Amino acid sequence: NNNNNPPPEVVHYYMSNLTTSRDPIANQETVLILTPLARFYQEYWDNLLSLNYPRSLISLGFIIPKTKEGSQAYALLQAQITKTQSLPKGKRFASVTILRQDTESPLQTQNEAERHKISNQKVRRAAMAKARNSLLFTTMGPTTSWVLWLDADIIETPPTLIQDLASHDKPIIAANCFQRFHNPETNSPDSRVYDLNNWVDSPTAKELGAKMGKDDILLEGYGEMPTYRSLMVWMKEDGGDPGKEVELDGVGGTALLVKAEVHRDGAMFPAFAFYHLIETEGFAKMARRLGWKSWGLPNYLVYHYNE
Amino acid sequence: NNNNNPPPEVVHYYMSNLTTSRDPIANQETVLILTPLARFYQEYWDNLLSLNYPRSLISLGFIIPKTKEGSQAYALLQAQITKTQSLPKGKRFASVTILRQDTESPLQTQNEAERHKISNQKVRRAAMAKARNSLLFTTMGPTTSWVLWLDADIIETPPTLIQDLASHDKPIIAANCFQRFHNPETNSPDSRVYDLNNWVDSPTAKELGAKMGKDDILLEGYGEMPTYRSLMVWMKEDGGDPGKEVELDGVGGTALLVKAEVHRDGAMFPAFAFYHLIETEGFAKMARRLGWKSWGLPNYLVYHYNE
Ligand SMILES: Nc1nc2c(ncn2[C@@H]2O[C@H](COP(=O)(O)OP(=O)(O)O)[C@@H](O)[C@H]2O)c(=O)[nH]1
Ligand SMILES: Nc1nc2c(ncn2[C@@H]2O[C@H](COP(=O)(O)OP(=O)(O)O)[C@@H](O)[C@H]2O)c(=O)[nH]1
Ligand SMILES: [Mn+2]
Ligand SMILES: [Mn+2]
Repeated sequence: NNNNNPPPEVVHYYMSNLTTSRDPIANQETVLILTPLARFYQEYWDNLLSLNYPRSLISLGFIIPKTKEGSQAYALLQAQITKTQSLPKGKRFASVTILRQDTESPLQTQNEAERHKISNQKVRRAAMAKARNSLLFTTMGPTTSWVLWLDADIIETPPTLIQDLASHDKPIIAANCFQRFHNPETNSPDSRVYDLNNWVDSPTAKELGAKMGKDDILLEGYGEMPTYRSLMVWMKEDGGDPGKEVELDGVGGTALLVKAEVHRDGAMFPAFAFYHLIETEGFAKMARRLGWKSWGLPNYLVYHYNE
Repeated sequence: NNNNNPPPEVVHYYMSNLTTSRDPIANQETVLILTPLARFYQEYWDNLLSLNYPRSLISLGFIIPKTKEGSQAYALLQAQITKTQSLPKGKRFASVTILRQDTESPLQTQNEAERHKISNQKVRRAAMAKARNSLLFTTMGPTTSWVLWLDADIIETPPTLIQDLASHDKPIIAANCFQRFHNPETNSPDSRVYDLNNWVDSPTAKELGAKMGKDDILLEGYGEMPTYRSLMVWMKEDGGDPGKEVELDGVGGTALLVKAEVHRDGAMFPAFAFYHLIETEGFAKMARRLGWKSWGLPNYLVYHYNE
């Protein structure tokens, strides 16, 4: 060794040392929280900070579109990150990565009515799939045990979200995503269903798929295309056991915990029609093809922002 | 900030700053060389060291199976890495990551006859696909411009391999993989075709696929299953232009340069039948579904070890 610098580290990882267990805190399992972020809501950040999983075991990854809205969101996010990452060591996240996209968003505006138009869905979901993949492929490391997909507009979850989902020891597990609103009929606070992408497949949907062109996709929640799938949002029972599990064929990405090994095996978010499914729904199908099942918790709720 | 440590770095990446150009050295583009490695050949390492792309722009990633052979390969690889990474700074690789698999290899032995039996192919190629995905998903970072897939038994390439492949500015580009041997008939050195996975599709193969069960895969190079695909190995011309390009429908992984954005979009190595294709061949198809084409250089040769 003929210079003064120590040789750069060669990093060895024994994949068998990486666990994903029912008790991830006791086993010091690392969690990568991934959020595609088009808009910044302070309530999202506050809820993230309210999670009581040790922050030193959490890494954060964001991907932000190249739009004006994206630039605003970026500035707001950065301000909050700087604040949190200036806290004493134990209260900071292990690391934070922000990717700024180079592709234009396919939609000019992100307002809900525009986003949810059926004619916009395929191009929008394909772009979302690519954004999720870019984020995943560049932030997951050899020591990541779990990946929590958490949308930027999820503003209320139990503080034990990570532990609760992990305690089921499932490869892929989704919380049930609702939305709080003020009900004008009763003039009181209420909640309604939001994420329709968590579902159990139906014969009708399969038949629809079989008749489609190879690039066509099935979408959930559009009257023009009734699938008769069993949606997890409708499985919620009043006072029901939050630990109740159902096996799912499609999942959404609003609040979804995935064992990192599922992604490592190659399960990603197809930006093309995969069994006529795309993005998170296609992900569940791809994971299934790799031997991994998806699950949902109908009575375990998280809440989406109400625009 | 109420302690003495600086806050941990928050890393921002502008994806538009990441280029993949015809002149990657001038543009300081980083290359991640990924090698699934079941056996270590000194000739592989020596050839790797002979590449004249700046090492400071190259990161290496290896994945090694959990077999006795794997342990031997691991020890030999480590010894060489230690040696190279102790060189003065400019002569070291930017970083080296070694993943040791936790899953058993599906095959007990790695000898060529056993590996190439048709009955072993599906389980073997699926395991290879998962190994490649694990390696890719955990080593690719936000600053990776190119990924060079280089098998551990590629023992001879031009020293300008990376620049030469990159100069074509293709999303995916494969060298043509041959094997040197001593020809007993002529009693002189000779070479013969090796990697049959670089091909242009045929109507016969498509028809075979259409008649197969959904989990069945097409394999190349087996007399029992003639596909009549045009294999790149047979397109080599004596004294032919090494710059000649052909568009491919299937690729092999022996020496394959991929723009990192192709992987980032979600193109991975399917461990399941994807359009009746698996692993590297399935990767080409998946990339195509994502809008990326594959190319090969029939007259640009690399050589596989002769067991
Ligand atoms: N990076 C990125 N994130 C996006 C883009 N569009 C939406 N998002 C984010 O992706 C997640 C899901 O999108 P959203 O529009 O909320 O979907 P919806 O709730 O199903 O209508 C949210 O966290 C958004 O902030 C985009 O073009 N790029
Ligand atoms: N990590 C890992 N690498 C493997 C395994 N089997 C083979 N390899 C490596 O993967 C590459 C391709 O495999 P190889 O057996 O050479 O394929 P062939 O040349 O097509 O017969 C080579 O670099 C091998 O060293 C395995 O089970 N795990
Ligand atoms: Mn949303
Ligand atoms: Mn080989």
